Amino acid sequence: MNLLQPTRVEDSAYIVEGVDIKEARNTCLLFSPKDSSLSSGALANILAIFKKHDINLVHIESRSSLRVPGYEFFVEADGKSGALGKAIEDVKEQCSYFNIISRDYKDNATAVPWFPRRIRDLDRFANQILSYGSELDADHPGFTDPEYRKRRKYFADIAYNYKHGEPLPHVDYTKEEIETWGIIFRNLTKLYKTHACREYNHVFPLLVDNCGFREDNIPQLEDVSNFLRDCTGFTLRPVAGLLSSRDFLAGLAFRVFHSTQYIRHPSKPMYTPEPDVCHELMGHVPLFADPAFAQFSQEIGLASLGAPDDYIEKLSTIFWFTVEYGVCRQEGELKAYGAGLLSSYGELEYCLTDKPQLKDFEPEVTGVTKYPITQFQPLYYVADSFETAKEKTIKFANSIPRPFGVRYNAYTQSVEVLDSKPQISNLMDNINSEFQILQNAVAKLRV
Amino acid sequence: MNLLQPTRVEDSAYIVEGVDIKEARNTCLLFSPKDSSLSSGALANILAIFKKHDINLVHIESRSSLRVPGYEFFVEADGKSGALGKAIEDVKEQCSYFNIISRDYKDNATAVPWFPRRIRDLDRFANQILSYGSELDADHPGFTDPEYRKRRKYFADIAYNYKHGEPLPHVDYTKEEIETWGIIFRNLTKLYKTHACREYNHVFPLLVDNCGFREDNIPQLEDVSNFLRDCTGFTLRPVAGLLSSRDFLAGLAFRVFHSTQYIRHPSKPMYTPEPDVCHELMGHVPLFADPAFAQFSQEIGLASLGAPDDYIEKLSTIFWFTVEYGVCRQEGELKAYGAGLLSSYGELEYCLTDKPQLKDFEPEVTGVTKYPITQFQPLYYVADSFETAKEKTIKFANSIPRPFGVRYNAYTQSVEVLDSKPQISNLMDNINSEFQILQNAVAKLRV
Amino acid sequence: MNLLQPTRVEDSAYIVEGVDIKEARNTCLLFSPKDSSLSSGALANILAIFKKHDINLVHIESRSSLRVPGYEFFVEADGKSGALGKAIEDVKEQCSYFNIISRDYKDNATAVPWFPRRIRDLDRFANQILSYGSELDADHPGFTDPEYRKRRKYFADIAYNYKHGEPLPHVDYTKEEIETWGIIFRNLTKLYKTHACREYNHVFPLLVDNCGFREDNIPQLEDVSNFLRDCTGFTLRPVAGLLSSRDFLAGLAFRVFHSTQYIRHPSKPMYTPEPDVCHELMGHVPLFADPAFAQFSQEIGLASLGAPDDYIEKLSTIFWFTVEYGVCRQEGELKAYGAGLLSSYGELEYCLTDKPQLKDFEPEVTGVTKYPITQFQPLYYVADSFETAKEKTIKFANSIPRPFGVRYNAYTQSVEVLDSKPQISNLMDNINSEFQILQNAVAKLRV
Amino acid sequence: MNLLQPTRVEDSAYIVEGVDIKEARNTCLLFSPKDSSLSSGALANILAIFKKHDINLVHIESRSSLRVPGYEFFVEADGKSGALGKAIEDVKEQCSYFNIISRDYKDNATAVPWFPRRIRDLDRFANQILSYGSELDADHPGFTDPEYRKRRKYFADIAYNYKHGEPLPHVDYTKEEIETWGIIFRNLTKLYKTHACREYNHVFPLLVDNCGFREDNIPQLEDVSNFLRDCTGFTLRPVAGLLSSRDFLAGLAFRVFHSTQYIRHPSKPMYTPEPDVCHELMGHVPLFADPAFAQFSQEIGLASLGAPDDYIEKLSTIFWFTVEYGVCRQEGELKAYGAGLLSSYGELEYCLTDKPQLKDFEPEVTGVTKYPITQFQPLYYVADSFETAKEKTIKFANSIPRPFGVRYNAYTQSVEVLDSKPQISNLMDNINSEFQILQNAVAKLRV
Repeated sequence: MNLLQPTRVEDSAYIVEGVDIKEARNTCLLFSPKDSSLSSGALANILAIFKKHDINLVHIESRSSLRVPGYEFFVEADGKSGALGKAIEDVKEQCSYFNIISRDYKDNATAVPWFPRRIRDLDRFANQILSYGSELDADHPGFTDPEYRKRRKYFADIAYNYKHGEPLPHVDYTKEEIETWGIIFRNLTKLYKTHACREYNHVFPLLVDNCGFREDNIPQLEDVSNFLRDCTGFTLRPVAGLLSSRDFLAGLAFRVFHSTQYIRHPSKPMYTPEPDVCHELMGHVPLFADPAFAQFSQEIGLASLGAPDDYIEKLSTIFWFTVEYGVCRQEGELKAYGAGLLSSYGELEYCLTDKPQLKDFEPEVTGVTKYPITQFQPLYYVADSFETAKEKTIKFANSIPRPFGVRYNAYTQSVEVLDSKPQISNLMDNINSEFQILQNAVAKLRV
Repeated sequence: MNLLQPTRVEDSAYIVEGVDIKEARNTCLLFSPKDSSLSSGALANILAIFKKHDINLVHIESRSSLRVPGYEFFVEADGKSGALGKAIEDVKEQCSYFNIISRDYKDNATAVPWFPRRIRDLDRFANQILSYGSELDADHPGFTDPEYRKRRKYFADIAYNYKHGEPLPHVDYTKEEIETWGIIFRNLTKLYKTHACREYNHVFPLLVDNCGFREDNIPQLEDVSNFLRDCTGFTLRPVAGLLSSRDFLAGLAFRVFHSTQYIRHPSKPMYTPEPDVCHELMGHVPLFADPAFAQFSQEIGLASLGAPDDYIEKLSTIFWFTVEYGVCRQEGELKAYGAGLLSSYGELEYCLTDKPQLKDFEPEVTGVTKYPITQFQPLYYVADSFETAKEKTIKFANSIPRPFGVRYNAYTQSVEVLDSKPQISNLMDNINSEFQILQNAVAKLRV
Repeated sequence: MNLLQPTRVEDSAYIVEGVDIKEARNTCLLFSPKDSSLSSGALANILAIFKKHDINLVHIESRSSLRVPGYEFFVEADGKSGALGKAIEDVKEQCSYFNIISRDYKDNATAVPWFPRRIRDLDRFANQILSYGSELDADHPGFTDPEYRKRRKYFADIAYNYKHGEPLPHVDYTKEEIETWGIIFRNLTKLYKTHACREYNHVFPLLVDNCGFREDNIPQLEDVSNFLRDCTGFTLRPVAGLLSSRDFLAGLAFRVFHSTQYIRHPSKPMYTPEPDVCHELMGHVPLFADPAFAQFSQEIGLASLGAPDDYIEKLSTIFWFTVEYGVCRQEGELKAYGAGLLSSYGELEYCLTDKPQLKDFEPEVTGVTKYPITQFQPLYYVADSFETAKEKTIKFANSIPRPFGVRYNAYTQSVEVLDSKPQISNLMDNINSEFQILQNAVAKLRV
Repeated sequence: MNLLQPTRVEDSAYIVEGVDIKEARNTCLLFSPKDSSLSSGALANILAIFKKHDINLVHIESRSSLRVPGYEFFVEADGKSGALGKAIEDVKEQCSYFNIISRDYKDNATAVPWFPRRIRDLDRFANQILSYGSELDADHPGFTDPEYRKRRKYFADIAYNYKHGEPLPHVDYTKEEIETWGIIFRNLTKLYKTHACREYNHVFPLLVDNCGFREDNIPQLEDVSNFLRDCTGFTLRPVAGLLSSRDFLAGLAFRVFHSTQYIRHPSKPMYTPEPDVCHELMGHVPLFADPAFAQFSQEIGLASLGAPDDYIEKLSTIFWFTVEYGVCRQEGELKAYGAGLLSSYGELEYCLTDKPQLKDFEPEVTGVTKYPITQFQPLYYVADSFETAKEKTIKFANSIPRPFGVRYNAYTQSVEVLDSKPQISNLMDNINSEFQILQNAVAKLRV
């Protein structure tokens, strides 16, 4: 999945054929009552406030608080019921900690744009897709092919019904589909040795060995996802259609990549107006197996969580110029690492010629560069290394106006919102533990 | 699951009724050929060596190496075939990195005792259980109860067939079983407020709210495991019988707790000669939801990986005196945190009286203390805090003679064996990233 | 210098012969006006407040603030003039940061006990000595020896007039003094190989080579101080008499050791009722050349800065049982590292026999142990290593009720009082820089 | 002092009038014998080797080794005596650690270019100056003024005879000299508020308050040096003439700035062909009082130690474009921070106009840029912040081919050459200690 139209982000009007997509405009509140014991009746008092204001709560959850000694509560309020603004004011007064996250953050100055906190929250994106994957534009090569459209619907439905934790559905590709894949595979693999970056060429043979990357086989997402998990913890998730930039980037924060599973129309094997399984597998997957690249990608994702809209746009532009269309310099030579290049025979050849313009990757500058989406890129940004790109991205992320830090906890597969001293102390304990592991490992090192 | 007979560790002779348990005595080799490119034929040469010596390889896997620029290979050799010692000598000569991990480490001076590297390797323990869970001793309260024995067989089979990643099987407990649980639940919950540690009492209400901890309901392992994963990343795994100490402790390194699912015999609700679901859920589970305790438990597990036998015994003794029978001092008062205490009405009352002897927890001393397993403990070790206990355990772990450091990678759910400079550089990069998160979070902190 | 009578700490009544000792009871104020620009007249306003309340300011200093974007001012007010309490109240209102440090902290709940912030502040201790070094008790071996008393006056005057930064005065010792030294040197050096700790025996030959440690020569403090500075940054400073525990310990925070320069009375070469140059050079100096011991000693010093009186007493007791009378276990054998042991032939022999009682060093316990000062110690505390002792001391220090952290800045030779976020950010930058040095050094390491 | 002619670095032929300058071409050897006990006779054996090869040793020193458990020896061999190459080969065989540092590194592939290890080693630079400060070129405004030349000789001699640790000589400036200073002071202070960077304007009033920066007074180096030491640990050192780039940069590693003390010729108060006291005090000093700038400057110094000649040239070019002619962007406006700008009325005005070219500071690029030394700079490099400039410099430094890392130890005022595991462990201990200070300070922070 890439971000073909980042400017359409957060568009509200869309029509989806054949699938019931509910508006997910609920408001989430996270709070600790001043007396945060579970037995004290504090929660009951607060629930009474919501009732008084006719707010329907669709979810109530109690948790241990990392910020105060007691508990915190997570409630999700139906966005269309009651006088939410007033209820929020009243509840706030009862609380020592109070945080609003909402899809409707534009209506509320103190609200943080909604973002997933736990990996299973990504399931909600299915209801947030901007266009369902089976809709085809009039100029799509498969527009007039009813068989192809039916097939696309099949893939979209698989993704729409997918839930976190389930195995990725196995797909039996048709002979024709495999032939399309084979053409692309055969052509691209001729170029990789000379045109792809070192990391790509390091991982590719492992994908051949472990995941069935072959001319006569379209690899199964499940196998690829398991391989990636073993390498870097990245996993794939099928996607039913176009996600908003905000949602798509949020997935990266969890090292989750939303991947298409269908293949382009067989009439034009070397062209596709949208990402397909060839783009994902040949373009994106090998790099996500590289630890430094995986971290870099995750940093873009973490930077996006709760960020204002203009920064979402910058981050998706950064994503475009790196993960999609990035080139890098290795031992003095230019190489491609962006998925859009690595999955396009034509642009992969073109990008290393002296025709396009080259600039150093600098997030502040890269993030505000305009680009065309229907032709070869006139300008590429060059990265020194994924480590450096990551560091620059972290620096850029720190400049985003957000009243908290974020950290991904890979144990709980959740994003920690860092806005209190106890959490900072806890993070320092973690660093201390890692440092002790380091000291011990150095002590064991034979020199 | 607790460790009732840690002295029986690594016993080799056992009979299991009704289930085919294979000897898992294979030897695993991890190596990087000097020329470690995938296309060079180096692997083919090495495979030829094994063939020459008549070694059956039951598994071959190629991976990216974290130690050298190229690849490494992981092969598992059938322990009973060919001249493995000679093959190893020959292969070693071709390699820049070479590591043997083996259940038969006693026969091989350079071998490290086998341990799981990936969370799914825990599936192998099913073939390693010391006694199958449906075998009962003659003095077991259920020995003459055919219904109960049948039921035990049912639970053992569930666990035996369980594979990592599957949902934990839901069990419909009988009315009689629920009544047994109810008696225990009713009695123990009377004591917790005064006798259990702060962390226990903090988590317990959340288990009531989220996992159905009630007098009239035996919680499902699946619900409890999901709750723990959200809190600390700990998960439960059903176990078919008694694991060796080495295997049981190894699970903790992955934050995996091997749990029984059956309940004690209804004839003696306040007594059980072995761990049962009451012991696991009322005793162990609440503490695993506490971040500091979770880390402490994991440290014991990490310390055990590849450790010599005598250290395994020390670590299981430390486990006994902490996770099973630990007490701690909080605001000047003694409180229980060990699962053996928190699941036994009698010993929970007794342990805070002035009858037992108390000593400060010091891993070196605690680890060599003898203890009875069929009566109340005459001696308890007192921890100041789980943080301090963790730090002492890390110090102790660093004294274990092992030629490498270990680190758990929660992204890949695997154990990293740290024995090379590139890994250490990588770990430093990680610490650096965490430190930048810290710096940003402090910058965002309102003071 | 040791702390023979730590219970006499902070006694106020004393008579000093021949030297004019002024009461140094001034109050120091450190503050940042709300408008802290230098040209704004804010300082002038504040000075007017002092004038209004008839306070004489004996020192005014402007500095760059590490806590707020502007400046801070350090003023010292004459303790006997005007209505200081009221002036402080008025000034406080004008300030964004306000801190009182005072010798009269007992009269002022918000005042922190005075402590030196810069190394040259140690010059003030000359006016704070509890008894001048030339006073001798009636039972002192030199009490009736007018020549010896004259000599002691000579040494006391040297120290009294010494200022930070000056070379330590060279002393021509008499033939008789050198003979006394020779007797002690000859005897003690017989025992060191077997009785002194590893670190002592490592450094001693270097003192022979570099500082003239010989039977026929009393080393010059200047040479020894320079040697120590090269090893660990410790320096010696001559002291004119008995310092309070608070002041003596504060010196250690700067890695400054207050040292006597005179020698004991020749009539009893193997006995001295007070520290003398033999005790300092044979007892203390070798260990201060050891990096881990130097850090440990400094930690005691840093812990003392601004601590309440009861903690000063605990810290001087800890000093007694470690730096003065500590023993340690090395390769399974008991060894002496305390200066009181290493400079006393009799107690050095005794301390390793089975007569005295031994306990593990634990600051909380050690700090409240009573001890005799006129006989061999009945109890010694045993340290595992100086690193461990240091860590335990840091933990103990963190438990001292102080509203700030402290850090020694070796560049500016000053103590940083950490009580604001900018300082913490700055400290994190420093750690980050050190970490980068580490990363680079590891990268350069040949393995 | 600046580096007017960095291309003349390491020129060997020069004549100095009136002062006896010895060739300092000795070779220094640092080694640990395999049996490194002091009593073993190992040193004697090695000394015998030197004797055999007719090498004169001008210095022998024993030290505790940080790399091996025993001792190391530092000897300095007279470069003109005997067969040093052969002696070195023989000695090397006896040693477990061996390191050559030499001014004659070009003749010896394994030698590291000489650099000072201790702050007092800077005394050796007096014998290494490239041209003595009293020599004037024919076009110098004072060339035909015998009084001025005499005065210059007076200042050069002061510096030539200066030794580390001594107070900086107080100079009584003449009325005419003070008038010259006054003209410059009056003019420049008109521009600072608008043209100088924030840090400059923050420090300047403190120099007025504390060091006598006034129109009618030339501040004394001693006062300024003490002020800087209190702020950042930087100190000034008088310099008798032009230092090589290598030596000048090495001073910065110790936070020592080599400063002229004389003033320009009164005939042209607004012009000087070389650095003088106005340039040093008005240009350099204020910035060295800023902690971040001080660190940045020191990093350039540390990077230079033992670096190959081409990197010395790059580093002195970096010095030129930052410390001498740097500009920075603050709140969107360009400001000057380089001393060459801040001490030149004309160029300070010019540099913020739109005439010169501007580029971002990037050490790799900046370090190879050519520049004129007799006219206004056509190109300036712009820094974002000193922190960022420091980080970029550290990254650049890590790319310098050197077989070791370096770290400045402010306690011992010496440079640690990091090339062994024990040192790395020691550095990790230090970081750990700093981290504990951080944890405690955060715990104390009021939020």
